[in-house]
Amino acid sequence: MHHRAPIQSKLDIDALEATARAKLPRMVYDYYAGGADDELTLADNRAAWDRYALLPRVLVDVSERELSTSVLGRTLAVPFAVAPMAYQGLAHPEGELATVRAAGAVGAPLILSTFATRGIEEVMAVATGPVWFQLYAFSDRGATRALVERAAAAGASALVVTVDAPLLGNRRRDTANDFSLPGDLGVGNLDGLEVPGGSAGVSGASLAAYFGQRVGRSLTWDDVDWIGSIAGLPLVLKGILAAEDARLAAAHGAAAIVVSNHGGRQLDGVPAAVDVLAELVDACAGAVEVWVDGGVRRGTDLVKALALGARLVLVGRPVLWGLATDGETGVRHVLEGLRDELDLALALCGCRRPADLGRGHVRPAAGSGMR
Amino acid sequence: MHHRAPIQSKLDIDALEATARAKLPRMVYDYYAGGADDELTLADNRAAWDRYALLPRVLVDVSERELSTSVLGRTLAVPFAVAPMAYQGLAHPEGELATVRAAGAVGAPLILSTFATRGIEEVMAVATGPVWFQLYAFSDRGATRALVERAAAAGASALVVTVDAPLLGNRRRDTANDFSLPGDLGVGNLDGLEVPGGSAGVSGASLAAYFGQRVGRSLTWDDVDWIGSIAGLPLVLKGILAAEDARLAAAHGAAAIVVSNHGGRQLDGVPAAVDVLAELVDACAGAVEVWVDGGVRRGTDLVKALALGARLVLVGRPVLWGLATDGETGVRHVLEGLRDELDLALALCGCRRPADLGRGHVRPAAGSGMR
Amino acid sequence: MHHRAPIQSKLDIDALEATARAKLPRMVYDYYAGGADDELTLADNRAAWDRYALLPRVLVDVSERELSTSVLGRTLAVPFAVAPMAYQGLAHPEGELATVRAAGAVGAPLILSTFATRGIEEVMAVATGPVWFQLYAFSDRGATRALVERAAAAGASALVVTVDAPLLGNRRRDTANDFSLPGDLGVGNLDGLEVPGGSAGVSGASLAAYFGQRVGRSLTWDDVDWIGSIAGLPLVLKGILAAEDARLAAAHGAAAIVVSNHGGRQLDGVPAAVDVLAELVDACAGAVEVWVDGGVRRGTDLVKALALGARLVLVGRPVLWGLATDGETGVRHVLEGLRDELDLALALCGCRRPADLGRGHVRPAAGSGMR
Amino acid sequence: MHHRAPIQSKLDIDALEATARAKLPRMVYDYYAGGADDELTLADNRAAWDRYALLPRVLVDVSERELSTSVLGRTLAVPFAVAPMAYQGLAHPEGELATVRAAGAVGAPLILSTFATRGIEEVMAVATGPVWFQLYAFSDRGATRALVERAAAAGASALVVTVDAPLLGNRRRDTANDFSLPGDLGVGNLDGLEVPGGSAGVSGASLAAYFGQRVGRSLTWDDVDWIGSIAGLPLVLKGILAAEDARLAAAHGAAAIVVSNHGGRQLDGVPAAVDVLAELVDACAGAVEVWVDGGVRRGTDLVKALALGARLVLVGRPVLWGLATDGETGVRHVLEGLRDELDLALALCGCRRPADLGRGHVRPAAGSGMR
Repeated sequence: MHHRAPIQSKLDIDALEATARAKLPRMVYDYYAGGADDELTLADNRAAWDRYALLPRVLVDVSERELSTSVLGRTLAVPFAVAPMAYQGLAHPEGELATVRAAGAVGAPLILSTFATRGIEEVMAVATGPVWFQLYAFSDRGATRALVERAAAAGASALVVTVDAPLLGNRRRDTANDFSLPGDLGVGNLDGLEVPGGSAGVSGASLAAYFGQRVGRSLTWDDVDWIGSIAGLPLVLKGILAAEDARLAAAHGAAAIVVSNHGGRQLDGVPAAVDVLAELVDACAGAVEVWVDGGVRRGTDLVKALALGARLVLVGRPVLWGLATDGETGVRHVLEGLRDELDLALALCGCRRPADLGRGHVRPAAGSGMR
Repeated sequence: MHHRAPIQSKLDIDALEATARAKLPRMVYDYYAGGADDELTLADNRAAWDRYALLPRVLVDVSERELSTSVLGRTLAVPFAVAPMAYQGLAHPEGELATVRAAGAVGAPLILSTFATRGIEEVMAVATGPVWFQLYAFSDRGATRALVERAAAAGASALVVTVDAPLLGNRRRDTANDFSLPGDLGVGNLDGLEVPGGSAGVSGASLAAYFGQRVGRSLTWDDVDWIGSIAGLPLVLKGILAAEDARLAAAHGAAAIVVSNHGGRQLDGVPAAVDVLAELVDACAGAVEVWVDGGVRRGTDLVKALALGARLVLVGRPVLWGLATDGETGVRHVLEGLRDELDLALALCGCRRPADLGRGHVRPAAGSGMR
Repeated sequence: MHHRAPIQSKLDIDALEATARAKLPRMVYDYYAGGADDELTLADNRAAWDRYALLPRVLVDVSERELSTSVLGRTLAVPFAVAPMAYQGLAHPEGELATVRAAGAVGAPLILSTFATRGIEEVMAVATGPVWFQLYAFSDRGATRALVERAAAAGASALVVTVDAPLLGNRRRDTANDFSLPGDLGVGNLDGLEVPGGSAGVSGASLAAYFGQRVGRSLTWDDVDWIGSIAGLPLVLKGILAAEDARLAAAHGAAAIVVSNHGGRQLDGVPAAVDVLAELVDACAGAVEVWVDGGVRRGTDLVKALALGARLVLVGRPVLWGLATDGETGVRHVLEGLRDELDLALALCGCRRPADLGRGHVRPAAGSGMR
Repeated sequence: MHHRAPIQSKLDIDALEATARAKLPRMVYDYYAGGADDELTLADNRAAWDRYALLPRVLVDVSERELSTSVLGRTLAVPFAVAPMAYQGLAHPEGELATVRAAGAVGAPLILSTFATRGIEEVMAVATGPVWFQLYAFSDRGATRALVERAAAAGASALVVTVDAPLLGNRRRDTANDFSLPGDLGVGNLDGLEVPGGSAGVSGASLAAYFGQRVGRSLTWDDVDWIGSIAGLPLVLKGILAAEDARLAAAHGAAAIVVSNHGGRQLDGVPAAVDVLAELVDACAGAVEVWVDGGVRRGTDLVKALALGARLVLVGRPVLWGLATDGETGVRHVLEGLRDELDLALALCGCRRPADLGRGHVRPAAGSGMR
């Protein structure tokens, strides 16, 4: 992608969120927006990016720029992807179909949630770019195997296994709202699966109970090995914050890890991903790709992540705000806006491509109390 | 205790406090809620927990968990206890009787205050779990001996000696409210004791004067040795913040210390317990158990304390808010809620039991200015 | 300049800004006041000065003081200059003519913007002090050469090349306001130049498009060498934040660099100049002069910059607020006020002249979280 | 002084200030309350104490305590003194006479300002405790000598030379209020002195001009030597923040220095005294006593200062708020309150006397960003 036109972003994610909030039922908005317990981590995920300053270089010819990046051995047009997010049908009737079309338009992979309202085949049918499958492993290996094989058969080109959710985080908003799925919304990927409740939705039951019945609390590195052996797809482990787990991921053959705190929705009081990113990049020493998510709202956030060593950045809630506001068009507005902001920020850092960014381009901000 | 059901805490201690505040006379609420001088330490006790981040591990089988812990050579069902708090009859007619029943229901020890409104025998009569006796040593050794022997005879299984209150802290709220005990409330443990005023209560006299007449300002390590020699019970020293005092506690045969600033009620401007915890754990080098209290409001606070090396955590004011709001039921709501939050937080840290937690699970939070 | 009279500054730049804001069209005020994206750097530019404390020395005879400083081999009456700022005709009908007269009155050089509303010859005609020319290099070397030669012929005594703007920063206020130049305002320095649009102004086109058509994105160190070879004037590179770029500036024969983030108008999230100043002074090791700009509002800010090793400080927006409020008189009020505040602050630091200031006079402020 | 009664302070200096503010003309309140420029240092002087935490020791017999301290070779009943403050007649008709009586009642020395409304002889006539004389040295040595000899003859037992005011700080409140002394208020210590204006007051002239006419801007270490040679009194240098100046003070025979930023009234943006205290104590290595002032409002502030190595603490504005509110009684209320708070804080630190305090009792507060 070559940009020569002047780039001025009109993307205002906070305004988009306000619009989405006004449009959505409170139960839905809270499910999307909320985090665990006191939402300290939720807030910190955004504040954390501002604890890092960019150190631009000058007098580099940036008249031609290129955002493409090699991820999982394949060239992506942009160094970001859409994070896995459940139940997108709550935000817009087209749900994941709108999202995948918009993602394809900018060349960003979509990571489809196990709990998507649309099944993987339906999503693949309209996809114009890569789709990866997010896996919640079940206690029952048979069900897990069925789900993995179905995703692979449908054309998913990577498997993103969530490893930070043996139990559901304590999401007080959902408990207060008695969160339930409307009766007409299915969970396409669970159709026909022999897991408790199947695709029957979560009406009449708490989200935690629903989750607890389906997702395995006993998932271990052995299961990761087994999933790897059946998947035939690059394996990505999502939800790693400790350096030792990053090293274990490499040892167990993962292709990538996602440094993530699950959008502040699991354990409150854990580090923002960016605050452990460099440490985990160093721990991996190139043996696995390091991806990151959480709180990204600006192109400068993307640049900071890349400069600290992330290969790919996942964008979550902003996509939902675009989706709720204006369906596919709304998501494109978000993803194109982030792409343009990234492109400009890269240029103003004196870089022509993501790979030009390095540790020298970022440092703890002077007022942050960090060193 | 094995938990398999999904755990979503509805415990909201701030809301409980608001309810209790509306219900209680201002003099009583202020006595419970207040701290010394400008209440900087009071506020810091809560803020301090957020200065530490949890670093969870993943892919550990946490389908079966166990909260029990060995404390003073005995197995407790949970790694927390009810902190000693005076005059619980002000919060609810049943006072300490309601508290001890609720504590027993979750297996948490109750530490009964010297200044409890119910005497130790009355409390033991309804207790279903361990009761420990908090001792304010008097200037008069005879009175002190009588009190200690009475507590031991009644069945207290440990003696928790308060060492940070040679004088009463400067509690401006109590001075402003002219705090006094209602005439119908006694101080059961002082009945028949030859200390000035006996159990006559504090009506018509300032709290500081009342305290000053009864409690010894000259308490030294020699007295600790003497109390140890007469007690026949494990000795716990409560109110230690300096590493050298922790070492002295070990040298003088204490079984445990409580790292505590007395809920911010003694000297304003001292460290929150959590901020010196690791230092004191290291100073003790295993020679005494290290307990901690102050500002605990979430299961994640408990996990942080345990990860930093605390063996036991004392919970104070939240118990009073539960007691004031709904008696025994209110206290159970608080203690069960904390237990469930602890259980979930432990699981999300990748731990099956408190003993699995270690220093690697906690670090200064990135935005805290700490290193 | 010898001051013996008591010095009490009445300069209140925030009040001046409020007056200017009330007087100016919102589009104009926003263009002057605004920064890029979330304006974090804009705000930090001011906050940063307060992260440094002055350490005064006492018992020095400061009855006679002298503010003059050697800059580019010439003696200036004061160690500050007026930063290059475009379109001053928007603030006051006399525009840059008023500014240059006021600057001359206190002996501060004016740095005339390429995008000034008055051409260099018109400005030189009324100048009583040094005028330096700020250069945006064009993609077309012929146009650049014509501009440089014109500036030199008119009497500019230095060339200040902006190096941090290969593209225009993402200035959301200007996009929202659809910023355009009134039809009657020209851009004098572009008259007759063969650059797209010439001096036709920016009406009907976005600022970014206008900027993008004129300014070169491919500017490199080679171009700096070439500009140096044609200029016959001391070359100053404005917009350097990285130490390696400072070293390159020295290697490429620059006479000075301006440590600057372009008033927070280019890349949001970069360091305030003062936060990298000492590092860049050390990197230059005296090979080039180090100047600084951004957020200066007090004489104490000037003293901090000088103590950290800056030779000259550029003052920007305050000049515009003076200009908008009261033309030449308003600018003099600002520049004389800053001079008097500097003089007093210098004296209270125990210094008789800027050169007496050193690293020992400044340190990270205790509450700033810096070390 | 032996305290055995319970100590609960009712001193609320902020409330006292509010009362004084309501009572005093705005010009007077602002003169007392204000600082230089943006009053950053003024505010920081108070915030700084909270950046330090006290680390109490336990199980020390504190039933008998003693606040007396050796200062300038003499035993003072308390380790604090009343800071020099000008024009106390503006706060209360009795002015310095009320203050000196109250100071004597608690055994705190009064430091009488050169610009006191009452002359030294009048003050000595009612003093029951030590009075020290604060000296603004004049440009004219004859006038300075006359003033020093008069102070010594009247019975002042130390000379406190202000060294941080070669020019008056930029006190914007006073400029805005056009501060002037009422015609009926004299400046007793200047009566008959051959300095410009004599005791004629500051009506009709700015404070800075008045100050500038009388006080010497050329004061150097030579003058300190000369003053020492004529004084026959212990010499104290007030207004030192740099370690090198502390060493010079020792070398020039000072008996003590006052680490002070002049209540935030001289140069804005300098360190709070407590933030450089330990450094200056170390620099002096016992060769001179180190005193401190600025922002002290609590007994715990006094304890922190003493623990960091200060021998004496000066208390300023709180005395004025007491004086304005209730004359001598008001000042006693302040000084007795601080004494009682100090006594309690000392006891709760496990100390029986100021000399028991050491560096081990204080450390940077965990949330302060300091190390």
